[in-house]
Amino acid sequence: MTVLGIDPGLANTGYGVVARRGMRFVARDGGVIATPANTPLEQRLATIFEAVDALLVEHAPEAVALEDLFFGQNARSAFAVGQARGVVMLAAGRRGVPCSSYTPQQVKQAVCGTGRAAKDQVARMVMTMLGLPDQPLPDHATDALAVGVCHANHAPLAAVIAR
Amino acid sequence: MTVLGIDPGLANTGYGVVARRGMRFVARDGGVIATPANTPLEQRLATIFEAVDALLVEHAPEAVALEDLFFGQNARSAFAVGQARGVVMLAAGRRGVPCSSYTPQQVKQAVCGTGRAAKDQVARMVMTMLGLPDQPLPDHATDALAVGVCHANHAPLAAVIAR
Repeated sequence: MTVLGIDPGLANTGYGVVARRGMRFVARDGGVIATPANTPLEQRLATIFEAVDALLVEHAPEAVALEDLFFGQNARSAFAVGQARGVVMLAAGRRGVPCSSYTPQQVKQAVCGTGRAAKDQVARMVMTMLGLPDQPLPDHATDALAVGVCHANHAPLAAVIAR
Repeated sequence: MTVLGIDPGLANTGYGVVARRGMRFVARDGGVIATPANTPLEQRLATIFEAVDALLVEHAPEAVALEDLFFGQNARSAFAVGQARGVVMLAAGRRGVPCSSYTPQQVKQAVCGTGRAAKDQVARMVMTMLGLPDQPLPDHATDALAVGVCHANHAPLAAVIAR
């Protein structure tokens, strides 16, 4: 299965395309969609929407996985992140790709085996699992790959439970 | 000028189309885009996006006006509203229609002359200004018409100042 992981943000939306074959994970793509601060908000959201839509067309993922990011934030920043996340989910919805959300704790648990792992430990584990231990990637891309791995790890189990 | 006012929300997004001719306001349309709670979030956002897009096509407004809704909310609800607002702004951005935001105080000031007006006073004033004093409308539609009136009231002045 192929998963598009997204770390949504208005200025920087990280993305990571993770494919799972059996117990192995492969990174197909990863990067950051950046939008300039001095651009009207509606144009920034359009940039994010179109970039995510292009990723959905290019990689045809079975699922989009997003991190739940409102924890520990104030209402103003949660509101800004929510807008970016809304257009990501819309892009998925319009292509018929289901979305799943994971808390930061669930991502850490899936990648490192503990919900209290440090951020750099998660990053190292993700890059090792994906066979990219020496690849320098922006933080947001690594976070997106991590939530992609988290979903790819959960999904086969969820399918078994649902039978 | 014609303004599409929006009161964004995941369950209920109010909309109101307000046209201004000189000092007079006319309501062209008003209502609520409702999305069922038991539907996947990405589908609810797609419903809001498509309904707003249809309003932009039908009424060809020069501007979209939204209320800033994160004040006095917790991060979780600000996040939910932000997602709905994001897809509304995206619809405007993709049609090239500029968006403006107003605080609840600015809307009250524009409609009632004071930022501390009560909610029902704002509703009565909006309906009177639009020549619909006896028209029963859902709260979200009235709020959307109010922010539309607020923008239509501000915009001519802003244009004069910008000269």
